[in-house]
Amino acid sequence: MKKLWFIFFFTSIFLNAQNEDNINTQISKIYRKALIEGKSYDWLDHLTNQIGGRLSGSLNMESAIKWAKEELDGLPLDSVWLQAVMVPKWVRGTFEYANIESSPGNTINVNICALGGSIATPSIGIRANVVEVKHLDELAKLGKEKIKGKIVFFNRSMQADLINTFKAYSAAVDQRYSGAAEAAKYGALAVIVRSMNFRLDDHPHTGVMSYGDLPTKKRIPAAAISTNDADLLSSMIALNPKLRFFIKQNCKNYPEVKSYNVIAQINGEETPNKIILVGAHLDSWDLGDGAHDDGAGVVQSMEVMRLISLKDFRPKNTIRLVLFANEENGLKGAKTYSKNVKKNNDEHLLALESDAGGFTPRGFNFDTEDHYFNKILSWRPYFVPYYIHLFERNGSGADVSLLKGNAKVLAGLKTDSQRYFIHHHSEMDTFDQINKRELELGAATMATLVYLTDQLGLE
Amino acid sequence: MKKLWFIFFFTSIFLNAQNEDNINTQISKIYRKALIEGKSYDWLDHLTNQIGGRLSGSLNMESAIKWAKEELDGLPLDSVWLQAVMVPKWVRGTFEYANIESSPGNTINVNICALGGSIATPSIGIRANVVEVKHLDELAKLGKEKIKGKIVFFNRSMQADLINTFKAYSAAVDQRYSGAAEAAKYGALAVIVRSMNFRLDDHPHTGVMSYGDLPTKKRIPAAAISTNDADLLSSMIALNPKLRFFIKQNCKNYPEVKSYNVIAQINGEETPNKIILVGAHLDSWDLGDGAHDDGAGVVQSMEVMRLISLKDFRPKNTIRLVLFANEENGLKGAKTYSKNVKKNNDEHLLALESDAGGFTPRGFNFDTEDHYFNKILSWRPYFVPYYIHLFERNGSGADVSLLKGNAKVLAGLKTDSQRYFIHHHSEMDTFDQINKRELELGAATMATLVYLTDQLGLE
Repeated sequence: MKKLWFIFFFTSIFLNAQNEDNINTQISKIYRKALIEGKSYDWLDHLTNQIGGRLSGSLNMESAIKWAKEELDGLPLDSVWLQAVMVPKWVRGTFEYANIESSPGNTINVNICALGGSIATPSIGIRANVVEVKHLDELAKLGKEKIKGKIVFFNRSMQADLINTFKAYSAAVDQRYSGAAEAAKYGALAVIVRSMNFRLDDHPHTGVMSYGDLPTKKRIPAAAISTNDADLLSSMIALNPKLRFFIKQNCKNYPEVKSYNVIAQINGEETPNKIILVGAHLDSWDLGDGAHDDGAGVVQSMEVMRLISLKDFRPKNTIRLVLFANEENGLKGAKTYSKNVKKNNDEHLLALESDAGGFTPRGFNFDTEDHYFNKILSWRPYFVPYYIHLFERNGSGADVSLLKGNAKVLAGLKTDSQRYFIHHHSEMDTFDQINKRELELGAATMATLVYLTDQLGLE
Repeated sequence: MKKLWFIFFFTSIFLNAQNEDNINTQISKIYRKALIEGKSYDWLDHLTNQIGGRLSGSLNMESAIKWAKEELDGLPLDSVWLQAVMVPKWVRGTFEYANIESSPGNTINVNICALGGSIATPSIGIRANVVEVKHLDELAKLGKEKIKGKIVFFNRSMQADLINTFKAYSAAVDQRYSGAAEAAKYGALAVIVRSMNFRLDDHPHTGVMSYGDLPTKKRIPAAAISTNDADLLSSMIALNPKLRFFIKQNCKNYPEVKSYNVIAQINGEETPNKIILVGAHLDSWDLGDGAHDDGAGVVQSMEVMRLISLKDFRPKNTIRLVLFANEENGLKGAKTYSKNVKKNNDEHLLALESDAGGFTPRGFNFDTEDHYFNKILSWRPYFVPYYIHLFERNGSGADVSLLKGNAKVLAGLKTDSQRYFIHHHSEMDTFDQINKRELELGAATMATLVYLTDQLGLE
């Protein structure tokens, strides 16, 4: 009897070790394929250089949807379809113009761009004195007396000593999102906001803003100013508090238009009703070509489907790709997708998005319960050879966050984000700023988490 | 008695926790200072844009030595001095020229650069048929019959599926280092070597080569060719094995000249005879401005001295900076320094170098004994908030490697190296390819290891 136990014991160790070896081999094949014969870089070249920036409601976004569907139709997947979504349509119009007038007739041009969703200035522009603040709550202290008839300049820098740059972004972005709505309450004529960028350079960074519940006729124009010009303006105000700022932009909000989420899937062999979702957002801002935000995530997610469809293993669960519409200014794609999921009560094991740029992958952020998180933590050794170490809680991502309650695990690919805010939402977000290897490593890392979740399960 | 033990036990836990808190606070101050009020980026701007590439024996290298000494003299250090070193002097001369002649008079220009140490071609150049190989050992199989009178083209790619790019470099660089010496034995007229670069682009990458013990008159010219042109040449050879290649370069080796290691130190308060060394190499290749290799390491090491001299703590041991001469083509700076150390039997606790580019730091490579390595591993939790995870054995670095036997721990800063070989030894190694935050994080990470070694000791 003792002998039998010994045999059982060593056999089970042996089988376990064999299984681990097999998993390690599969993962090394995933990385090898992504790095040696990957498609993500060529796909991104097309999406950015042939199509370009893909703002919701634009012709470019329509082209991107058509292109993505065609590419996915060419892969050996089980189905590819479009899910209709109504999205906002905001158009920048002609390029913005701004200057600082230090004395009458004496002007210096500065670099600005309208914030997404902002109204235009009158066609002759706005020229007014400037009041500089760092925090939204300074507005109440200044009051109407000091703000009315002026342009409010929000000039709080991103905090450079935060290692996680997304935390610095979260801590600074209230100026951009709510600055106009708040300043309008005190009679400001317009707001300009320091770009969300650690670096001192000349490129303004757009991004979504909101008027909240402000009545239409109380709304005021909002623009971002480059970090160099924010510093210039601030130093010139210190010398001459009476200087005037001129701003002219003719952006416009149109009624909603029809767009689509692009969806594709490989049906699971054992439990096809259980879904592992991988995705990114297909829309982008209009200033660059949306290579990092979020072209990288789009082609990495497509690459996950390609790597899995290469049939080194047949997935137990359904692997589904969703390229979301309209993450940047409305999340309408994710809202439509998640509404449908809730209606059908679709069960998602994992919903993994990539929306942190095409930089070297470092790990993942997870929104999940302890026992699922601990299960995933037990897979860490599989990731170590690929320099993937970060398994953090919270902050999975905007699109997948709406699946809360319908997915056991929400996850976001975590990248080396030190360079991200140089590019984010600006004309600096272009294909030439993408490194092929880093992009491919991200795709392989996502495919590895999908593979492990599918093969080992979360229970 | 029991009560006393309890008190002792809890007091010691309390003191330990307090000590850990204190260490964490000091480390966060180091990172904060590096990121908020760092000097490394401005220093690097000067070293690269005002001085430029710093090949051993060049006037630029003399300027760099003078500049580094002056900057260090301006810091509150205890001493700064120069250590004389004799270094090789190799000069590229006018730019190289090469073309592929597919049929008489029908030529396509390609991008090459002489390898460091190579001789010139005759002034009229060399035109000859080409024999393409991937590995050095193919030469013996081909023999004199097939090689004599030809140009040997070494065209082995760096292996793209290796995650650690330095391993791919090590596995490919024999072609560059020994290709000419080996091919000359079979009567080759010259060698061209595929650049050590994963990416397909137009920039040739130089680097040191050696003729070994080949007599002077048997030596043949050696050049690197860009990856794009290597692929072009290879495909044209496949179509027409009789095509001819033309190469012309007029580089030259001169007798050795005098140069210097730049050394500076802060004397230890408790054990000034024990040294913690931090360093990098001040020389660079001549094609770019040596921003990543190794300008970044130079200014990071200088920044470590500045951060420590800011007097948040007084070091117990002597903290010494060494900016080594001539790492690229002779290691003469490190040889002189280590010879002196051995002569005086100087005790080094740690010798830490930075020579992996100014990219996001990921950890360290250590050459040391198990018990020192385990001691350092116990400090890992201090590094986690800064996303530093890699504590690997072996591969500390070329300059510090010569201190083996005189230092308890040899270490090299480990960076995110996916982009490194785009820049390495080429005209792409320039200041604009440096990210300020990544550079500063590297300096802070080095300072943290120095701080912990000094305060906690290795025993």
